[in-house]
Amino acid sequence: MKQFLLFSAMICAFSSSGHAQSADSLAIKKISDEIFMNGTAYSNLKYLCKKVGPRLSGSPGAALAVEQTARMLREAGADTVYLQPCMVPRWVRGAKEEGNANLVDGKKIQLNIVALGNAVGTPSGGINAEVVEVKNFKELEMLGADRVKGKIVFYNYRMDPRYINTFQAYGEAGAYRGQGPSRAAALGAVGVIVRTLSPVLDDNPHTGATRYEEGTPMIPAVAISTNGAVELSKLIAEGKLRSIYFKTNCQMLEDVPSFNVVGEIKGTTYPDEIITVGGHLDSWDLAEGAHDDGAGCVQSIEVIRALKSLGMQPKRTVRAVMFMNEENGLRGGTKYAEVAKGEGKKFIMALESDAGGFTPRGFGYSASAGQSAQIEKWQSLFVPYGASEFKRGGGGADIGPLRPLGTVLIGLNPDSQRYMDLHHAKTDVFEAVSERELNLGAVAMTAMVFLVAQYGL
Amino acid sequence: MKQFLLFSAMICAFSSSGHAQSADSLAIKKISDEIFMNGTAYSNLKYLCKKVGPRLSGSPGAALAVEQTARMLREAGADTVYLQPCMVPRWVRGAKEEGNANLVDGKKIQLNIVALGNAVGTPSGGINAEVVEVKNFKELEMLGADRVKGKIVFYNYRMDPRYINTFQAYGEAGAYRGQGPSRAAALGAVGVIVRTLSPVLDDNPHTGATRYEEGTPMIPAVAISTNGAVELSKLIAEGKLRSIYFKTNCQMLEDVPSFNVVGEIKGTTYPDEIITVGGHLDSWDLAEGAHDDGAGCVQSIEVIRALKSLGMQPKRTVRAVMFMNEENGLRGGTKYAEVAKGEGKKFIMALESDAGGFTPRGFGYSASAGQSAQIEKWQSLFVPYGASEFKRGGGGADIGPLRPLGTVLIGLNPDSQRYMDLHHAKTDVFEAVSERELNLGAVAMTAMVFLVAQYGL
Repeated sequence: MKQFLLFSAMICAFSSSGHAQSADSLAIKKISDEIFMNGTAYSNLKYLCKKVGPRLSGSPGAALAVEQTARMLREAGADTVYLQPCMVPRWVRGAKEEGNANLVDGKKIQLNIVALGNAVGTPSGGINAEVVEVKNFKELEMLGADRVKGKIVFYNYRMDPRYINTFQAYGEAGAYRGQGPSRAAALGAVGVIVRTLSPVLDDNPHTGATRYEEGTPMIPAVAISTNGAVELSKLIAEGKLRSIYFKTNCQMLEDVPSFNVVGEIKGTTYPDEIITVGGHLDSWDLAEGAHDDGAGCVQSIEVIRALKSLGMQPKRTVRAVMFMNEENGLRGGTKYAEVAKGEGKKFIMALESDAGGFTPRGFGYSASAGQSAQIEKWQSLFVPYGASEFKRGGGGADIGPLRPLGTVLIGLNPDSQRYMDLHHAKTDVFEAVSERELNLGAVAMTAMVFLVAQYGL
Repeated sequence: MKQFLLFSAMICAFSSSGHAQSADSLAIKKISDEIFMNGTAYSNLKYLCKKVGPRLSGSPGAALAVEQTARMLREAGADTVYLQPCMVPRWVRGAKEEGNANLVDGKKIQLNIVALGNAVGTPSGGINAEVVEVKNFKELEMLGADRVKGKIVFYNYRMDPRYINTFQAYGEAGAYRGQGPSRAAALGAVGVIVRTLSPVLDDNPHTGATRYEEGTPMIPAVAISTNGAVELSKLIAEGKLRSIYFKTNCQMLEDVPSFNVVGEIKGTTYPDEIITVGGHLDSWDLAEGAHDDGAGCVQSIEVIRALKSLGMQPKRTVRAVMFMNEENGLRGGTKYAEVAKGEGKKFIMALESDAGGFTPRGFGYSASAGQSAQIEKWQSLFVPYGASEFKRGGGGADIGPLRPLGTVLIGLNPDSQRYMDLHHAKTDVFEAVSERELNLGAVAMTAMVFLVAQYGL
């Protein structure tokens, strides 16, 4: 019932501040018209996807993305554009991975696999071992070391399609990608295959970071496509599988220097109150990173462009930030907060878009009760844009480190139905983004930034 | 503010009928789980798009679609499946259209054009004439017969991107496709070129029905892609265009017999109260008709399948209807209402899904104030599915003819951002549909049908 209580709170709020609301709604309409008529988020995204392409931290693509988004911020009219240095991990996939299911009848079936991000590679000859399939950690523990030792563990956990919000399903299933390798290694496994975290059945394996626990051996780990997982499970059930061979060539190199990219409009009245709006600039190496998170970057640039084009000078300083290294280290977000701590300014709010460039549904926010109530007074302003689902709780990975500074964190919540289909896969390309959906997200973000810039929090 | 008043009405309703609401919300959760776990809407849509393909009224594709959706309804578990005969127009495009811009320097530029639906073709040698560009009807009238006579009129009306709901923009721009040819012919024009009704700039012309007015000559009419329209306008502005040539081969043949397809679950308590749920089976000849309206058809079949699979016997009769000929005649919808009038039953509600298989946002309904209030009591039940935008006014083309029978009309309102990009174009294919979005729409529809089946209206 929370949703409805918010709505009734809003009705009361509306009657007591009708004038401000109506001036604000006109301002937001201007923002929306500007973005739909003259927006550059879509063309910037095209550049980022097609001219820059994959941009994993430390890669040449990431370096080019830094240079190009700095240009975009200047073209958007930011007063100041600068690079904020940070060291980032440099993980490389190496030559193309390969894998086969070796059947008892001597045949081989090729597997659609990719190494998990941050994983170690196999020895140069690959690994070849018997396979144990488990549906979850409980089944793994039941098997115990005796039956896991020397084997490849195949986590065949199906993302639960019953969650309406796919991030909930992802949250559950993500444990197998994140912790699966170390938990299998603790029982003596020599390798891990994780079913791709996607609700759709297709042939595209999705990568994403795994995390090795200290004290357990670092074993090679791959994702297999959902179709591949179904097929593999069938082979096992029918007693047709002898072993699996796979070879990966990935490795973690030394840290390298990189940057967050920052573009700023100085506040007219409270320049030392900082509103941060951002997405992350790095993407996985397999994809163009269109939804994850090129969208969030170009939307944040669009916030700057729209405000400047309309001559809507914010009272508080607005900073668009392209965070580096969200995918496999969070070094950019961590560095931004570290620098912020020393800046002697007030980081009042940070808004992140990192859930895809889909139609916005609303926002989630981590704030005090009073601040939350203030945000909720603005809810009605977002109804015409279909972005009025306001929920307590939320934010974003890159802005998370700002929370100890008292910063209100807000996450843009787009419709989640299509995100997991292409997340971290080669299908996360420019063509999968709708221009209008991307723009509508930028409208919602600009409106929220504008309100906080005018009223504070 | 209507939206908020509805919400407060709902809060009151909730407190007085909490028990029923919570039983209903459990029932809807069961429906949702069933559809996301075992739904067949997506595989049925794949069949309709890939094995049947385009299915304009009277075409072999339409006949195959009738046969195959009847099969799908039987497989879904409908008690009764039958075909309801109706005559339909048979418009054929004929051989591929061609068009050129002839420049003053003697060069030719090929144009991306397609004949508008229901249009007459050109003479076998095509037409070649000077062009007058107008942005709207006002500009056409200002030109007058003197400057239009013997020319091709080029309607270069840009769909207004500022409307958040793209159907509003479509409503405005649609006048040029519908009335443009006759209004130009009334001033002596020999042909018409209409800028494609789409908010995106690309090379895909969209077809769609035009309507000749009685008493004015029927002149050939084509749509040009949005990129083509921009380019053509530039050529005209720069004085580079001498004339345009185009040739179309379409014609309207004699009416032919076809069918609506009906699948029914008989109501246990009030079998003579009929709930209709449907989409239209015909599609334009250029496309697979995935969103328009294969989606609505397979979602309606899914309503039947979900209720039967769950053993949720409806108290009132539920009929899934695949309406024939929505695109260029509405003969199926008209016939259905005509037959309904003579059936001696009560057609209490009809729900149509004909706005694409996108994430559902809510419903629009045409009903009495009392019936609307009853529908609005259910609004909270749709919040968990993101489909709680309830709006007075709405329905669907095929169910419209039922309104004089006192039938409450309800339209499913999916998110509208992507629809017009591909509407009536060759890009309206299966691959443009998200399985989860399609299923979520089916969940919302099944829930609404279930509520009306249990409580009446």
